Amino acid sequence: MDIETVAAAAASAAGPCAAVSPPERATALVAVAAALESAASRLIPIAIAETGLSKDRLEVEMRRTCGQLRLFAEVVVDGAHLDARLDAADGAYVIGARPDVRRVLVPVGPVLNFAASNFPFAFSVAGGDSASALAAGCPVIVKAHPGHPELSRATAELVARALVAADMPDGTFQLAEGEEAGVGLLTDDRIRAATFTGSLRAGRMLAEIAAARPRPIPFFGELGSVNPVYITPSAARAETDLAAGFIDSVSGSAGQLCTKPGFLFMPRGAELDEIGEHARRVTEHRMLNGHVGAGYMARRSTVLATPGVTVLAQGSSRQDADGEWYATPTIVAVDAETLRKHRRELLDECFGPLAVVVRYDALTELAGLQRELFPGNLAGTVHATRGESGEIQPLIAALADTCGRVLFGGWPTGVSVTSAMQHGGPFPAATIDATSVGTAAITRFLRGVAYQNAPQELLPPPLRDDNPWGVPQRRGPVGTSSRWGTLTGSI
Amino acid sequence: MDIETVAAAAASAAGPCAAVSPPERATALVAVAAALESAASRLIPIAIAETGLSKDRLEVEMRRTCGQLRLFAEVVVDGAHLDARLDAADGAYVIGARPDVRRVLVPVGPVLNFAASNFPFAFSVAGGDSASALAAGCPVIVKAHPGHPELSRATAELVARALVAADMPDGTFQLAEGEEAGVGLLTDDRIRAATFTGSLRAGRMLAEIAAARPRPIPFFGELGSVNPVYITPSAARAETDLAAGFIDSVSGSAGQLCTKPGFLFMPRGAELDEIGEHARRVTEHRMLNGHVGAGYMARRSTVLATPGVTVLAQGSSRQDADGEWYATPTIVAVDAETLRKHRRELLDECFGPLAVVVRYDALTELAGLQRELFPGNLAGTVHATRGESGEIQPLIAALADTCGRVLFGGWPTGVSVTSAMQHGGPFPAATIDATSVGTAAITRFLRGVAYQNAPQELLPPPLRDDNPWGVPQRRGPVGTSSRWGTLTGSI
Repeated sequence: MDIETVAAAAASAAGPCAAVSPPERATALVAVAAALESAASRLIPIAIAETGLSKDRLEVEMRRTCGQLRLFAEVVVDGAHLDARLDAADGAYVIGARPDVRRVLVPVGPVLNFAASNFPFAFSVAGGDSASALAAGCPVIVKAHPGHPELSRATAELVARALVAADMPDGTFQLAEGEEAGVGLLTDDRIRAATFTGSLRAGRMLAEIAAARPRPIPFFGELGSVNPVYITPSAARAETDLAAGFIDSVSGSAGQLCTKPGFLFMPRGAELDEIGEHARRVTEHRMLNGHVGAGYMARRSTVLATPGVTVLAQGSSRQDADGEWYATPTIVAVDAETLRKHRRELLDECFGPLAVVVRYDALTELAGLQRELFPGNLAGTVHATRGESGEIQPLIAALADTCGRVLFGGWPTGVSVTSAMQHGGPFPAATIDATSVGTAAITRFLRGVAYQNAPQELLPPPLRDDNPWGVPQRRGPVGTSSRWGTLTGSI
Repeated sequence: MDIETVAAAAASAAGPCAAVSPPERATALVAVAAALESAASRLIPIAIAETGLSKDRLEVEMRRTCGQLRLFAEVVVDGAHLDARLDAADGAYVIGARPDVRRVLVPVGPVLNFAASNFPFAFSVAGGDSASALAAGCPVIVKAHPGHPELSRATAELVARALVAADMPDGTFQLAEGEEAGVGLLTDDRIRAATFTGSLRAGRMLAEIAAARPRPIPFFGELGSVNPVYITPSAARAETDLAAGFIDSVSGSAGQLCTKPGFLFMPRGAELDEIGEHARRVTEHRMLNGHVGAGYMARRSTVLATPGVTVLAQGSSRQDADGEWYATPTIVAVDAETLRKHRRELLDECFGPLAVVVRYDALTELAGLQRELFPGNLAGTVHATRGESGEIQPLIAALADTCGRVLFGGWPTGVSVTSAMQHGGPFPAATIDATSVGTAAITRFLRGVAYQNAPQELLPPPLRDDNPWGVPQRRGPVGTSSRWGTLTGSI
């Protein structure tokens, strides 16, 4: 892998990629989805072998991956994401004549996506970051995750072939492998944006590299989240399936999900035995790789050794003779005071099937706890009963201030790919508070360009009067009245 | 000025500010505009004394400042900037049931604006950054520019009083003075975004401070631009007012504008004498302050001492007995090869009334020159004649790739405040490629929050079914067909 060749190919593809018409680009995205689907029975066994994730889970993930490629195809054709704004020239403004100004969002150029280990399809080579960057009109380089190299190569070959067959420009899609290549590309001036899903340590390091470039670029990192869940006293009494739902969410995919609920706030006195019982019924699950397995063992040991921690389910973490790691859920309980006192030991994300139940005294303390202990998360959840809206309002406000998504009931895992999804949040949930799931993810790879007094034939299609792409055009400024004015004077 | 008190007040105001209804917030913005207007005759003389800018220019700037406050009032009431998306629950998706998900953009929290020296109204205390942040629903702290301290204090007092009278929360608007306070606030965890307009050196330093915080924040800096203008051979022959227009744009406000055309590309053989003549007719103009004056003198000396530079107008740069700096326009000419060879001496922005005329041989070389020499600019301009659209297309593409705004005819100074304006561009024009002028500037201070299965009474108003604020709501995902699916499974 020669960084220079890869970066040069991506840079050469930038102009041609941006020029591909929406229907052609949409067709290419659908072609990638179709290619993935037809290769699913070949790819999924590789994914199982390399990640230890289950066939069921990977089949669902594959469908999500293909579904979001098709969703972005529809976004591309719809064109609302281009935010086309047309302000006609107007000589009648009170302050002075105004030129014709039209603004559209255009692709930023080559995008570098660092793949995640825990979603070998949906957050990897052909995942949401690639789909949204391709949809935006950007060439994509994926830095493969070392946890599933064979799958990454097989997927990349398939994606690249489908794009070529769909007449996308050479260099539209490339794979890079190895840390050196990743950092080398991240510092290459031709790369214009980067995405990352992974650990706080690695993400922070890469974000700082991106910020220190001679020409810095946006680095969209998703670095960690513990996704607290709050159960009101009424809900604790009324809901019969809390323990089962919680343990399912904590232990699915061995807890190796960015939206795993790491903390469950339960009123003091609520029965916790059932949680332990459900946890003990969960069978052993392989961990993604040695790095994750060893990291989980260390975090779990720290939590278990913290004074004031009560064990609800001891769980296990072990390495077999082949070097693979396995785990069953570990669930502990603490009171809020212990959590405050031992925040260093307890608050960091534990990537794996471990969760902390926190006993609280009064509903009124929860908003403050959320703000104090969980300033940046992907998701926050409240289980309440009808009639409690007034009492939980401060907690909801605290969650909205500190999380990308606020759930009422249910569990934070199982992120829907829809136009309204937000998968981001204040740092460290995200380095830049954008979303990496749902159609708004495309905005990460767009920048505004205004055209002033341009002749029709030199305007990009979304800004032309005849609107050949049929995109939504917002005509006229928000304020055309004489209540405000615009200037074309000497400043 | 106690940083702790200021940051605490801003943080306390964040929730109440976000909760102010659109009509109330719009009324407050209009009240600030009215207060500025009624104080104009008192403020403008202070501005003249502190900045050396002319009365005419400052009157126009005052009208723009008030106009953009009113424009943002209309944006707030319109509500399109909230990008409200409502995806109804749907059990009929091919892959599985989907929850109700609704997403809206919410204010990021306290914003710190570093004021500029060159627009004491429009990019200072009550300028576009403050207007757009207040419109977004964020408390604002302005770090005063030391170039106009008395004006900053007078304006801030007036703005704060108008906001209080309009019932905005305590702490909505504050002024901070001094570099130590600015850096102290920039590193304070309660500040959630910052803006800056100024030099590459200072902006880069502050951007790195923002990126190195324990919790990094977006730093929207506008750090410099040279705004090249390209004249085709036909336009050079056809346009009779090129020299006058160019010199007006270069010398207005003593060239101390971010959109001043620093480079003018003219075909070899075109007459340049008239440019020199116009330049020599411009009367001396005071520079903003000693820092700018001394910096201009140094840059001018470097340019004049560069081998291969021909002087079209020598101009002047001098300091009087009171320490004030004055200048008349300096215009030089080079050929493209000299520009390439001496890029270190010639390419940096020269903040003041200096411009470089570049002689080129063929229209076909211009796109390459733009990409090679000017990778990040606020504006790029082309003067061409009808019928040249085909020939200039590569240059237009190069300008769109490297500038925030592409002009056809005219001059880059005189930025209209409209919904379609883009005042940003690739680095170093902007640290993050957003716009600081026009209504899209509001998006810098917003972040997405999704609500999943929320009861109506706990949804923010823009997401409610009864839509009490009457904002545009985008209902249903882009893809509701069975061509794609969404997941609420185990991942």
